[in-house]
Amino acid sequence: MSRYDDVVNLAVRRSLFYPASEIYSTAPAGMYDYGPFGTTIKRKIVDLWRKQLVQKENFLEIDGALIMPEDVFKASGHLGNFNDPMTQCVKCNTVHRADKLLEENSKDQYREAMPVAELTAALRILKLNCPKCKGELSDVRQFNMMIKSEIGVVSKVPTYLRMETCQSIFLDWDRLVKTMRVKLPKGVAQYGTVFRNEISPRQTLLRLVELHQMETEVFFDPKEIDVIERWDEVKHYKVNVLRVGQHAESLTTEQLVKEKIVSGKLIAYYLAREQQFFELLGLPLEKMRFRELDDTERAFYAKEGWDFEVETSTGWRELSANNYRTDYDLKRHGEGSKKDLSFLREDGSRFIPHVWEISIGVDRTFFTALELAYRQEGERTWLSLPPSLAPIQAGVFPLLSNKPELVIKAKEVYESLRDCYDVMYDGTGSIGKRYARLDEIGVPFCITVDFDSLAKNDVTIRARDSGKQQRVKIAELQDTLYKLITGKMNL
Amino acid sequence: MSRYDDVVNLAVRRSLFYPASEIYSTAPAGMYDYGPFGTTIKRKIVDLWRKQLVQKENFLEIDGALIMPEDVFKASGHLGNFNDPMTQCVKCNTVHRADKLLEENSKDQYREAMPVAELTAALRILKLNCPKCKGELSDVRQFNMMIKSEIGVVSKVPTYLRMETCQSIFLDWDRLVKTMRVKLPKGVAQYGTVFRNEISPRQTLLRLVELHQMETEVFFDPKEIDVIERWDEVKHYKVNVLRVGQHAESLTTEQLVKEKIVSGKLIAYYLAREQQFFELLGLPLEKMRFRELDDTERAFYAKEGWDFEVETSTGWRELSANNYRTDYDLKRHGEGSKKDLSFLREDGSRFIPHVWEISIGVDRTFFTALELAYRQEGERTWLSLPPSLAPIQAGVFPLLSNKPELVIKAKEVYESLRDCYDVMYDGTGSIGKRYARLDEIGVPFCITVDFDSLAKNDVTIRARDSGKQQRVKIAELQDTLYKLITGKMNL
Repeated sequence: MSRYDDVVNLAVRRSLFYPASEIYSTAPAGMYDYGPFGTTIKRKIVDLWRKQLVQKENFLEIDGALIMPEDVFKASGHLGNFNDPMTQCVKCNTVHRADKLLEENSKDQYREAMPVAELTAALRILKLNCPKCKGELSDVRQFNMMIKSEIGVVSKVPTYLRMETCQSIFLDWDRLVKTMRVKLPKGVAQYGTVFRNEISPRQTLLRLVELHQMETEVFFDPKEIDVIERWDEVKHYKVNVLRVGQHAESLTTEQLVKEKIVSGKLIAYYLAREQQFFELLGLPLEKMRFRELDDTERAFYAKEGWDFEVETSTGWRELSANNYRTDYDLKRHGEGSKKDLSFLREDGSRFIPHVWEISIGVDRTFFTALELAYRQEGERTWLSLPPSLAPIQAGVFPLLSNKPELVIKAKEVYESLRDCYDVMYDGTGSIGKRYARLDEIGVPFCITVDFDSLAKNDVTIRARDSGKQQRVKIAELQDTLYKLITGKMNL
Repeated sequence: MSRYDDVVNLAVRRSLFYPASEIYSTAPAGMYDYGPFGTTIKRKIVDLWRKQLVQKENFLEIDGALIMPEDVFKASGHLGNFNDPMTQCVKCNTVHRADKLLEENSKDQYREAMPVAELTAALRILKLNCPKCKGELSDVRQFNMMIKSEIGVVSKVPTYLRMETCQSIFLDWDRLVKTMRVKLPKGVAQYGTVFRNEISPRQTLLRLVELHQMETEVFFDPKEIDVIERWDEVKHYKVNVLRVGQHAESLTTEQLVKEKIVSGKLIAYYLAREQQFFELLGLPLEKMRFRELDDTERAFYAKEGWDFEVETSTGWRELSANNYRTDYDLKRHGEGSKKDLSFLREDGSRFIPHVWEISIGVDRTFFTALELAYRQEGERTWLSLPPSLAPIQAGVFPLLSNKPELVIKAKEVYESLRDCYDVMYDGTGSIGKRYARLDEIGVPFCITVDFDSLAKNDVTIRARDSGKQQRVKIAELQDTLYKLITGKMNL
């Protein structure tokens, strides 16, 4: 069993996430609900993103509507181009995503952007049949993944559910310029739900119909792609890159710019900031890379593209897409809406800002953070999540739950902490079981009240990862817990 | 101009919220994007809800998918019953919501749940015509407000966008019972987007097609409706209620129970907790009430219902619906999914839990918090938001922005605060303009660095509401700001 399966099993067992509407047999595939601990971990990932990649960068965050008019996607090109290649079994009618089916049955790489004729040819050469019923497969054709919604009363207005959060960022940009005293470069960020009519959703949170994104569009003047305020803070920081046709290497942002591996300092800067963010999620540096996209892989709007990938039990997994979208989007929406979306330079000239996009998949990031935090030793299973992502920062227990004096004291300790920390009181089962329950969801510290606590006013703190324990005076508990959680102290 | 209009103007001017996809003429009505300050204020309202009404109550929070299969809404009754009464102009085809049209043209109250024949009769008696073209209006008929979405590739699966967050709570309940060691009563909460095909969306955030809810379903044993753990904390707290056929009154939760105004202690307890939450949003107690719903007003699943209403410039406005849904939902979904959703009592008997619902409209609450915080005196306009809701807790300025030594010092002060507080540096325009800009979005404190600051290492703190100023040593600024924000100190 791979770590991927371990996480799926853990998730179902502890309700971190599970299929949406699962009690109904007609529940559509590709949709998941997050349960209580999963909701909290996901929220903490988003909060960390907001702090690191929005607030520290002085970016603007918006929260836009999910339904948008058809004209938006005509202009953006998605109604024509947001396709995946599909092939259908002529016998059982099951639909498959052609590129994924090819990849599962060959060592070659196939791209969704490859011409359908090439994909069809490959299917024939490999003599592939329907994996479900062995029936013959149809020629490959393009399938548009936009999901229509029907609103309006008398005449239905043609609208779609957004398939990326960035479209409202582009539509709102001009208004933000006019009302928020914007200076370039300026990022506009959004967290939210998006929808894709996936041909064959699978792998739980990795290929979903309904998913979550944290996206940032950094608007800048292409003449000033080498001007970025806090450059000095990252110029010696090393970014893991894998260029087309090269081996993976770790290069400073200065090298990325000097060797023209990226289009400018601004891009190198944000690659660095993004990698730093993923490090804070507890992902190991040696398992990450930005992989450069070649001409056949890049989205139709991108001039330069880097997928941020993490090595997992099922191979390298894409967590974010980073695209130099140029002035494509503002230009298209300017034409589509017949509005002037140009920006006024200080010298009086006007231009359409360029865009660097950082598009992070929340569900994949969540799953991958869990997978890489998963630990198993003998009977013991735990998630080694950083304290900032743990759904609960500390559990508080009485050593024996049938001793009222211990229960009272433990509840006192719990109440004294809950205003400042995410703590949980747990008074049922053996102490070993209680440790095991909290280990499994990544709680970094457990605080136990025993008989000595009554006399000495102290507790035992146990660390999840090392298993080490330490006595701490209750009067100093707030402070000790703060130091442990922020990493200023270790057990 | 009413306060309602003042807030709409402010919102557009400062991009707190604005019509979604507004640069496109085909943008559908009833959808809004939240701009940067609006996104932050909304998030802080949700955070406060989570702290007060979820975490302090030891409730579970989930985050469910937005698309659900048709069977869910067949079972819930919404496909048959989630209707609004509509009338259409026979001349220009414009569609109107019949009950709202009647209310706008009469002093009587009309309910969406009234029989369509009665509403038609009222239209005829009042001799109402189309407000747009004066054309004749059709008979009133029911219009279902569910929004269909088309997913799947070959055969489209019949799915709908959820119109209340609670449905996934009901579907997930049994799994949570089995995996989360649930003891009754237990609330399950959810924040998220919902969709309603409103006949005539209007009044900006007050009648939307795409809206946000914070909902909690408290599951309990009907035999134990009078058992609630922290009853003593609220038993002397007074709740504002308006019973059917009575005058508004302020009664303790004990009175509500003793006089059988509510079905049990559990309900009185949560009415109290909810009113306390709305107080924390800065809404004045004398402008709130829980209005009891009579038989014609209650939703089809409710045995007892109270709308939480706030008095505004446009009349009493409903911010939340509170319903005793009994075992309706779990029963229906048990039948619909053919699953046993009963709960095992400690004595071995089984029963379907009852549900008390607290359903808060986020957008209406956001708008109303702004409206009641809106102040105007002479030229000065400000939002008197509680510091916990303000998008920024303090602005930091140099007194004169063309003096480098002041700019450097002010930026130092700003940097020293930004790790702990939501602060904003503002260095452009006159000091008066900077105060005005921050007042308008509700920033409670402004910190100014002047020439004295350089010599004495102190700053001026100015309070938004009183306009009072005080000198504070920079070494004590962190601590002073903390006291000001938490209300432990006033200027």
